[in-house]
Amino acid sequence: MRALYVGRFQPFHRGHIHNVKKILEENDELIIGIGSAQYSHTLKNPFTCGERIEMIRRTIDDLSRVIIIPITDLHIHALWVRHVCNIVPKFDVVYSNEPLTVRLFKEEGFLVKSLPLYSRDFYNSTKIRSKIIKGENWKENVPKEVYNFIKEIKGDERLREIAKSDKI
Amino acid sequence: MRALYVGRFQPFHRGHIHNVKKILEENDELIIGIGSAQYSHTLKNPFTCGERIEMIRRTIDDLSRVIIIPITDLHIHALWVRHVCNIVPKFDVVYSNEPLTVRLFKEEGFLVKSLPLYSRDFYNSTKIRSKIIKGENWKENVPKEVYNFIKEIKGDERLREIAKSDKI
Amino acid sequence: MRALYVGRFQPFHRGHIHNVKKILEENDELIIGIGSAQYSHTLKNPFTCGERIEMIRRTIDDLSRVIIIPITDLHIHALWVRHVCNIVPKFDVVYSNEPLTVRLFKEEGFLVKSLPLYSRDFYNSTKIRSKIIKGENWKENVPKEVYNFIKEIKGDERLREIAKSDKI
Amino acid sequence: MRALYVGRFQPFHRGHIHNVKKILEENDELIIGIGSAQYSHTLKNPFTCGERIEMIRRTIDDLSRVIIIPITDLHIHALWVRHVCNIVPKFDVVYSNEPLTVRLFKEEGFLVKSLPLYSRDFYNSTKIRSKIIKGENWKENVPKEVYNFIKEIKGDERLREIAKSDKI
Amino acid sequence: MRALYVGRFQPFHRGHIHNVKKILEENDELIIGIGSAQYSHTLKNPFTCGERIEMIRRTIDDLSRVIIIPITDLHIHALWVRHVCNIVPKFDVVYSNEPLTVRLFKEEGFLVKSLPLYSRDFYNSTKIRSKIIKGENWKENVPKEVYNFIKEIKGDERLREIAKSDKI
Amino acid sequence: MRALYVGRFQPFHRGHIHNVKKILEENDELIIGIGSAQYSHTLKNPFTCGERIEMIRRTIDDLSRVIIIPITDLHIHALWVRHVCNIVPKFDVVYSNEPLTVRLFKEEGFLVKSLPLYSRDFYNSTKIRSKIIKGENWKENVPKEVYNFIKEIKGDERLREIAKSDKI
Repeated sequence: MRALYVGRFQPFHRGHIHNVKKILEENDELIIGIGSAQYSHTLKNPFTCGERIEMIRRTIDDLSRVIIIPITDLHIHALWVRHVCNIVPKFDVVYSNEPLTVRLFKEEGFLVKSLPLYSRDFYNSTKIRSKIIKGENWKENVPKEVYNFIKEIKGDERLREIAKSDKI
Repeated sequence: MRALYVGRFQPFHRGHIHNVKKILEENDELIIGIGSAQYSHTLKNPFTCGERIEMIRRTIDDLSRVIIIPITDLHIHALWVRHVCNIVPKFDVVYSNEPLTVRLFKEEGFLVKSLPLYSRDFYNSTKIRSKIIKGENWKENVPKEVYNFIKEIKGDERLREIAKSDKI
Repeated sequence: MRALYVGRFQPFHRGHIHNVKKILEENDELIIGIGSAQYSHTLKNPFTCGERIEMIRRTIDDLSRVIIIPITDLHIHALWVRHVCNIVPKFDVVYSNEPLTVRLFKEEGFLVKSLPLYSRDFYNSTKIRSKIIKGENWKENVPKEVYNFIKEIKGDERLREIAKSDKI
Repeated sequence: MRALYVGRFQPFHRGHIHNVKKILEENDELIIGIGSAQYSHTLKNPFTCGERIEMIRRTIDDLSRVIIIPITDLHIHALWVRHVCNIVPKFDVVYSNEPLTVRLFKEEGFLVKSLPLYSRDFYNSTKIRSKIIKGENWKENVPKEVYNFIKEIKGDERLREIAKSDKI
Repeated sequence: MRALYVGRFQPFHRGHIHNVKKILEENDELIIGIGSAQYSHTLKNPFTCGERIEMIRRTIDDLSRVIIIPITDLHIHALWVRHVCNIVPKFDVVYSNEPLTVRLFKEEGFLVKSLPLYSRDFYNSTKIRSKIIKGENWKENVPKEVYNFIKEIKGDERLREIAKSDKI
Repeated sequence: MRALYVGRFQPFHRGHIHNVKKILEENDELIIGIGSAQYSHTLKNPFTCGERIEMIRRTIDDLSRVIIIPITDLHIHALWVRHVCNIVPKFDVVYSNEPLTVRLFKEEGFLVKSLPLYSRDFYNSTKIRSKIIKGENWKENVPKEVYNFIKEIKGDERLREIAKSDKI
């Protein structure tokens, strides 16, 4: 069994790791689709696709069972599932709690499973980005590899500068 | 050291495997960029990106050191290197014999190494596609996993049908 | 005389029918341009272009005098009128109350006529979509053919699920 | 039963009329998809989508059973069938002899029927465009309504001028 | 020394002139990049690129030292600096106070200088557009050439009509 | 009177200079539109838009009467003239001998004047690029400023390397 799990991973946090572990327990292989892959340097998407791949690879142990694939936004929802299927290898099941993602895959006849709901407060990318901008402590929300990587590329500084722009 | 190697892999053949092995000998990790990722069902690009990823994953042993990333064509050469850098994680060296690829990476200041030249006759995707279309024997040109996979998805039949179209 | 009338028709409601009837009284033929044709599965554009064409065809009696044409969004306003003229057959007059549409066609020298103003409360796509989401009664706002069609494709369910997503 | 028939109709000729008639005999309704809808003013696509719609509407008698829909080229074959399904209303069967079109619809599980083969010499858009360029007689190849319309918009003159350009 | 200064210039106002003068004092030549070049007829971008070029050319005295270049939005921030470099001739320094612009050029290794901060209340395009919409006096905010040009093309009327649309 | 003259200028040669001089004799100002602005590093378009602007600026004396504007290819001919009009300031007359350009501007009602025909052998970009590739003498075909600039950026070397690629 091969599963698909799509997210933006801005940044990749502890909630995502729980999901990856759970899906790998139930499946042989996991395709991690990195959504909105072309975007970066915005409040919602501060990190490039390459940087997000780096975060995931530095954090996950069993890389041989994981296939990380960038998925660009098409902005045409009716084509999105076919677009995903064009880019990633065949999969048997989709894991998602996001209502639109669930709906789109179900309309195309895919099996969709939901993920356990963790504390939205702790495991939440929007919250983490907001903490980074405000200079609050976000170290515990992400794996230490992700924390170190973001520090290394000065990603926290980038996010704070972007937050001052009104272009986004 | 992390290396980048970009190709269309239509299909992934024995020459590509030689290159992957050589690069992995000289580097810790290898990013395989799948070029023209959005295209399929044409004479030059018969297989989808997902299918090409499948071919590579079924063939390569040491998947944990290999990062396979689709790279869509932008059709604007002056942006292409930056486009690649946006999508893939950081790399230290590029391997290529393709004159335009070499030129574009060199103009952006990258280190580019060339690959050994194998018999162009045997290790050549265009030749292999031509053999498939004409019904000649192409089994020896590709790894057995690729041969079996193309048979499994009826890729040879697809290519022969596309060849009858004058739309491409 | 051939008239052009552009709308998104999300969904096609009784107000639109009044407009179509009025325009057909004053003209020989009517081109109905379906705007934002590529979009669907969002709060503003829940239905696909194909579904919107179906709604209109099931509702209108005299189909031989009506030409239904999808018009994709270009997102470049200065080109939009020429884009429309490229896709639809020649027309003599445009009917619209939408200030930007009126402005763009007038800047290109077209004759623009306004439509009678009905009760904005009853004949209003935004209101109808909002009613569907809240589970209020929207049956009277649309022709029975449209109501039945939306039920048939479970479009009300789709809209309620999309409303739970924060991706849109 | 509703059928789909896709072509570029550059121009709409007597062979197309035979096909339309045959399909309408076997089905209740016919969707005529106008392919490469965005293109015009080239050797392969001299007429705009609006002009091609005009040709078809002036020629076909029973317009109430025919649905004419422009279909833009996406240039990504793996998405094309879904793109068509997004834009046109639901259909039960596809009519085509074009190998790539047949292949793409079959891969997505559609029923595809072939069309009778007429004399390729007479019923052939490429031939007709070539005759127009060379100043040969093409009047008999198209319905008189199409001939008159092309003359009216000076489409033959346009094609001869385009033929002098080396930009295309 | 050649400098780059990018703005949307909706419209070109007295604050922009101060910046142009200052940059020309410190450099031999100035490239004025007109951002969001493809957009017009919206609240944020009412004027076309051609109209903005006209405003600048009618206002600036020493045109031989100024190079005005339209820069379309790509909407992919990580490629934007390379996109600019592809379109404009080589430059030595960038002038900007906009946090995202500053960040993007710095990440690519460019020298970025800041501009003096004028009264945001007076020298502010958003304010000026708002005054035009409300019918307040905006004559003093722009050079007289810009005022006359906007009156000539009825740009104030256009902006007030756009403001009535809810499409933007 | 303001004139428009569109070309790709790959490279800008002595024939172009004759045209610019002639047009400036007959008009007050000249807009030089740089076509296919986004492309570079191909056999037909070796130089970037920025490089082509540099060639023109280094060669022309009276820069204050010349407005150089990049024009990207849209690949939709029916929109091209409107696209140009969106980007460049208003003009009164178009100079061109290119049949498609002439046709498109005439269909939109513009005044189009033809240019004197020089020796196609000497004043011909295709010929000059071919000479550069073959290593023949091309120094006399271009102004000395253009020759020196191409040498400075190693543009001749770039073209010869591109010529070895079969990607273009």
